[in-house]
Amino acid sequence: MGAVDSSRTIAELKELRALTGDDNGAQRVAFTPIWAKAREWLRTKLSQIPAETHLDAAGNLWATLRGKSERALLIGGHIDSVPNGGWLDGCLNTLAGVEILRRVRAECGGDPPVTVRVVDWADEEGARFGKSLFGSSACSGNLEMDEARALRDKAGVSLPDALKDHGIEFERVKESHRELANAAAYIELHIEQGPVLLDLDLPLGVVLGTFGVERHAITFRGQAAHSGSTPMNRRRDAFLAAAKMSPEIYRIAERSGGGVCTIGSCTTKPGIVTSVVEECRITLDQRHLDAAALARMFDEAKTASEQFAKEGNVGVEWERLWDIAPMPFDETLLRFCEEAIVESCGVAHRLPSGPLHDAAEVARAGVPTVMMFVQSLHGISHNKIEDTKEEHLELAVRAFDRLATKAIEWIARQ
Amino acid sequence: MGAVDSSRTIAELKELRALTGDDNGAQRVAFTPIWAKAREWLRTKLSQIPAETHLDAAGNLWATLRGKSERALLIGGHIDSVPNGGWLDGCLNTLAGVEILRRVRAECGGDPPVTVRVVDWADEEGARFGKSLFGSSACSGNLEMDEARALRDKAGVSLPDALKDHGIEFERVKESHRELANAAAYIELHIEQGPVLLDLDLPLGVVLGTFGVERHAITFRGQAAHSGSTPMNRRRDAFLAAAKMSPEIYRIAERSGGGVCTIGSCTTKPGIVTSVVEECRITLDQRHLDAAALARMFDEAKTASEQFAKEGNVGVEWERLWDIAPMPFDETLLRFCEEAIVESCGVAHRLPSGPLHDAAEVARAGVPTVMMFVQSLHGISHNKIEDTKEEHLELAVRAFDRLATKAIEWIARQ
Repeated sequence: MGAVDSSRTIAELKELRALTGDDNGAQRVAFTPIWAKAREWLRTKLSQIPAETHLDAAGNLWATLRGKSERALLIGGHIDSVPNGGWLDGCLNTLAGVEILRRVRAECGGDPPVTVRVVDWADEEGARFGKSLFGSSACSGNLEMDEARALRDKAGVSLPDALKDHGIEFERVKESHRELANAAAYIELHIEQGPVLLDLDLPLGVVLGTFGVERHAITFRGQAAHSGSTPMNRRRDAFLAAAKMSPEIYRIAERSGGGVCTIGSCTTKPGIVTSVVEECRITLDQRHLDAAALARMFDEAKTASEQFAKEGNVGVEWERLWDIAPMPFDETLLRFCEEAIVESCGVAHRLPSGPLHDAAEVARAGVPTVMMFVQSLHGISHNKIEDTKEEHLELAVRAFDRLATKAIEWIARQ
Repeated sequence: MGAVDSSRTIAELKELRALTGDDNGAQRVAFTPIWAKAREWLRTKLSQIPAETHLDAAGNLWATLRGKSERALLIGGHIDSVPNGGWLDGCLNTLAGVEILRRVRAECGGDPPVTVRVVDWADEEGARFGKSLFGSSACSGNLEMDEARALRDKAGVSLPDALKDHGIEFERVKESHRELANAAAYIELHIEQGPVLLDLDLPLGVVLGTFGVERHAITFRGQAAHSGSTPMNRRRDAFLAAAKMSPEIYRIAERSGGGVCTIGSCTTKPGIVTSVVEECRITLDQRHLDAAALARMFDEAKTASEQFAKEGNVGVEWERLWDIAPMPFDETLLRFCEEAIVESCGVAHRLPSGPLHDAAEVARAGVPTVMMFVQSLHGISHNKIEDTKEEHLELAVRAFDRLATKAIEWIARQ
């Protein structure tokens, strides 16, 4: 087996940053001129390998090294970023894929045992239209067409019109599904975007899957009353009931074995200093890798809210905002990923992914999938301070290449 | 002693409601045409007694029955209301005073033992300019001139300009202080605006004084973090710390012996469903009749906030929004008030006033003061559903007249 040149990936990440970033960070928002410029730069890199490239019906960019078998290993990433984004989120994945294509090409010439493809998904972040995983959900077939058709950016431009400017016909985006016809495995490298590996002082992690999400708004309704003339025992205080939920969700998450719960916003009505709160609305985001555990977390929160409402003589109402099932990754690929990490740096840690990724869409389409995480400094992403040690980035590219090799061998054996 | 005609007060309250209210309630906002119309109606009633009337420098309307002594009993009220207000708040006080003037005039002719005056304070509610107790604080000398000079209503009209339209020169409003020169006692009847007497099933209460108030904004500052990728034990959740304050203030109020604490508003930043709350701002309003107990409630809340901040690894900052000292009423007048109530209906209950009243300003100016409360149905005011049983209103006018008699005799003895 040949070796990838992991230092070249770092150099290319810096080259991309210089080309498409500014003092505030990365500016490669999908379906904008800077994103198109990044894509052009990427196509040049790919043609130099050389690999065949084409855009699919959803604007995803595919680079293909045809092999002895049509059965294909897919390596995914996304060169788009949020506004003022970091230098790694998404493009590390893509450029690590490019480096693996180079290595396979160098090692096998035009004749690898299986087909190897890199896909640069269109609009993973959803920064302009507020809908993430556009390209991968079009490809998986899960994109809600009516919802997507109605999306507009802040300037009022519709998603279909923005797509047209980039040569994409909205009504045909799901035709990209045909790209998965021979897909035998999908792998994706990503920065962790959290502090778990940092806390464990480990460079790399095996991603077990993406969390399922239950997202709700909870509204407590009591009675506005004068802050001076209403005795404490006569109050129907909507804020009191909502506030009790906060320590409670920490207990629920702790009992769940690995889940997380977040109250991200709280609004109060009438919301004035001289009145007991009549109406308090909080949002609750709950995530777990295990569907049964997620359902249990949701039930426990609901029961707690009803108890607190009863204690405070207020009403409570739940409204579902969004939900998605957990997407556990493929057992065989999880094992390959763990082996690749152990061979590269001695220790692997298994962890779930809180954020969603394109990988979840590919897994949903039935393609065996796995992701590898590399440690994030500060545990922060979507920000110009997003960073990872260069030695960890190099290690990640090398371990990811080992994973690719194992996957190729696995596909070839099938 | 003659008797007041308490049924006439009810009839006059209804007459005023028909003249100055609509389907949404009372509309006598101070310094508006409807308020001026109510004042004109009131002056006609006063001139029929007959009593001398005049406007003071702050726009307070005074009606005087000169007596053998210049030393005067003052009876206060306010005919102004909030927009969509109730039929009793403020004008019950004024019209009960008018009825007492009639009774004194009928009983003593032009020659009562002491001078008896009714004052209809200008703009108790502060509904148009957001500053309550305007007339009484000008009279007491406590009005902050620089603050008041800068006040504007929603249409941008300044308070000085609005006053000019009603013949009042802003820079001279504190000259109204001379009205208190011979004031020997001040009494005021008011609806309770809370549920205490209702819960006790008592019609009338002796008001011990007005609560002191400590009003603060408390801001907790943690760290925004992704709701999916941040483990619970790594969060610096500003909402968690703020939420813990809510049950805590109930415990603080309970320990305080009669105080009340209210968190009236809560705002969160970034305030989105997918992020741990970085910044959470709550308002805390604390009230107690005892200055030391109020100070203790404030200290306990501060200590608790610091403990919750420490537990959650977040910062906390307090900002004082407003404060006012408690204003306990006069011991002798409290006793007279209790006697008057017991003589009228058998049982008196002593309670503090949560809301401020013009009486607090008069007390602050050094005039012996007391208030009497009559039960509120629903415990609600500043709303068209504000109400009190007619039998309780009649009882209140009669008991209040007894209090006036006792006060007059007391002043005459001095």
